[in-house]
Amino acid sequence: MTDFIRTELAELQTPSLLLDRGRMQSNLSRMAERISSLGCTLRPHTKTHKSRDVLRDVQALSGNGGVTVSTLREARYFFDSGQKDVLYAVGMTPSKVADAAQLIHAGCDLKVITDNAAMVALLAQGAQAQSITLPVLIELDVDGHRSGVCPKSDTLLDVARAIAEAEHLELAGVMTHAGGSYDSRSIDEVKGHARNECALSVEAAERIRAAGLDCPIVSIGSTPTAAVVDDLTGVTEVRPGVYTFFDLFQAGLGVAEIDDIAISVLTTVIGHQAERGWVIVDAGWMALSRDRGTASQSIDQGYGVICTLDGAPLGDVILGGANQEHGIIQARAGGQALDVTRFPVGSKWRVLPNHACATAAQYDCYHVVGDGEVTARWERINGW
Amino acid sequence: MTDFIRTELAELQTPSLLLDRGRMQSNLSRMAERISSLGCTLRPHTKTHKSRDVLRDVQALSGNGGVTVSTLREARYFFDSGQKDVLYAVGMTPSKVADAAQLIHAGCDLKVITDNAAMVALLAQGAQAQSITLPVLIELDVDGHRSGVCPKSDTLLDVARAIAEAEHLELAGVMTHAGGSYDSRSIDEVKGHARNECALSVEAAERIRAAGLDCPIVSIGSTPTAAVVDDLTGVTEVRPGVYTFFDLFQAGLGVAEIDDIAISVLTTVIGHQAERGWVIVDAGWMALSRDRGTASQSIDQGYGVICTLDGAPLGDVILGGANQEHGIIQARAGGQALDVTRFPVGSKWRVLPNHACATAAQYDCYHVVGDGEVTARWERINGW
Repeated sequence: MTDFIRTELAELQTPSLLLDRGRMQSNLSRMAERISSLGCTLRPHTKTHKSRDVLRDVQALSGNGGVTVSTLREARYFFDSGQKDVLYAVGMTPSKVADAAQLIHAGCDLKVITDNAAMVALLAQGAQAQSITLPVLIELDVDGHRSGVCPKSDTLLDVARAIAEAEHLELAGVMTHAGGSYDSRSIDEVKGHARNECALSVEAAERIRAAGLDCPIVSIGSTPTAAVVDDLTGVTEVRPGVYTFFDLFQAGLGVAEIDDIAISVLTTVIGHQAERGWVIVDAGWMALSRDRGTASQSIDQGYGVICTLDGAPLGDVILGGANQEHGIIQARAGGQALDVTRFPVGSKWRVLPNHACATAAQYDCYHVVGDGEVTARWERINGW
Repeated sequence: MTDFIRTELAELQTPSLLLDRGRMQSNLSRMAERISSLGCTLRPHTKTHKSRDVLRDVQALSGNGGVTVSTLREARYFFDSGQKDVLYAVGMTPSKVADAAQLIHAGCDLKVITDNAAMVALLAQGAQAQSITLPVLIELDVDGHRSGVCPKSDTLLDVARAIAEAEHLELAGVMTHAGGSYDSRSIDEVKGHARNECALSVEAAERIRAAGLDCPIVSIGSTPTAAVVDDLTGVTEVRPGVYTFFDLFQAGLGVAEIDDIAISVLTTVIGHQAERGWVIVDAGWMALSRDRGTASQSIDQGYGVICTLDGAPLGDVILGGANQEHGIIQARAGGQALDVTRFPVGSKWRVLPNHACATAAQYDCYHVVGDGEVTARWERINGW
């Protein structure tokens, strides 16, 4: 945590990224209780927050089953902050083996993933050249969403054998991400994805074991499925990430409330276009990201929902348009034209984002807020 | 420029941001010749590159009429790199006056903008409190795109008088950004925006002068209009930015060729979903940005156009889908299914981005490439 003098929220520069620590802690506790009550372990994903300060709260409240990372830069950063048990959950590449080896030689229990035998062969060569034994999980495709091998396929066993037989690799288990849950139109659909994710992952692990191979880890995870799952029999760990902060997209899916969203962007009114019902602010897509995920949901939130400085949402007032450094506060499409005098020039407002991972990535720090004050400045990393 | 050892492009880590310096230099020279031949000065926008190393080439080839910035962090960074004449081209706010004053006290000729008298009053108070005289340009709205006062309105003269009469402010001129040009469906439409942008800006300046006030600067600028404008009579400076790199959106507008695009993202194949014709790579929307600007154009380029390691575009092969750290190479919609064996696991490819400003903002440096080698690593800044 950087040295920081308590500041009135209204005095903070704009745009800035705010973190409501109380809301975040509630999100962390709720998920921890759910997963723990199902007899399973959390391996929280750090890709949303990328901050050692946030991770302190995550691990205090959500337990310490290791971390999941989306880049090797995250792996290095969190290892340097004391995390030994790290799963890099994006398909490994040959040119990243040298960086992975550095971490492993330094004492990191780093695990990587792949979904194909061609990459297994390349990783085996790389691991040999670096004099390491590289633990590898097989990525499963449970919903046709993106990567992964079919849990019911012969290929699964071919990949498992290729890893198990490679001298410098170790078969560490199976993992999947139920990304298809993001396209759900109802909580029942999300629950279906959760059941499917568990069942297919456990089936894959059992098929590997039946072939006489080890499969210690059965790792699943997406925030939507983790938020609704009610049976984790056979699963060893769950890897949600965005539940730390939540966002409008998750609220649109129905797995969070608007009042659970822990990050927001502080912005200042720079002018009006009164005839058009527009309020121009200094937070555009650079401050919110270009993510328009809610456009595909039943309620399109534009680039974000406008809140007072205290964090109270204004209902149908959204950031309807965005250029690089300009945002346009508007009434939601179909709503009454906005009375722009409610937003005086120079006044400050908060914007809840569509997608916490994308918005937070536009910043190098969080301003931690509580009771109208900024109490800390927490760093975060970006890049690869 | 950071110390850097020449590297084979194929050895670079992925994802990385590549900069083809030769293409960039051609873009810079072409724009400089056009604006100079029209008897006008360039004040290049730094919001696209945010790099002192890039700016060296910009100023060597596009002259030095000062710089335009989109954040006060850019202003500080470029002032620290030797730029004295800086226009901050986003509506000023009261809480930014203290930072502006620091720059002005240090010798920066910083100019700010606003479009309303309420902000003029707040800026005048702030400038007095900071013991500075703050030069202010009036932002004009020439196309209903976002901010600005109507050039034909009484309000224009009210704002001009408010600035001129404020003891600690100085009326420095008028400025506009023809953002409406981005919605053009033909080059003729872009040319119409260019003529309109010039005519209305010059008219606004003449109305201010006719009211007995000074209006030294008449500043216009957008890359599309600057690329086609053929008469700049009465205009004192032009502020394009994205012309430095160009991108697929500008190519879609018709103001650049695909072969003019100077930045690309290097990525590695991590797997295949052969039945779906998908090639999975390690560049997702974190590496490309969430910008889908070409979705509204006649050719939707997905998240980017795939090129060989040498930079040759593959025609109808695009990054059709993206998650945080995963991209999906696909045939363009309606095209033949992709033969994924053309993209071996571990092979590297380049992706041309939709929007250079958004993609470059995901990185802290450029890898400068030429002749299959990476010859330098140039830093860039982000944030506010």
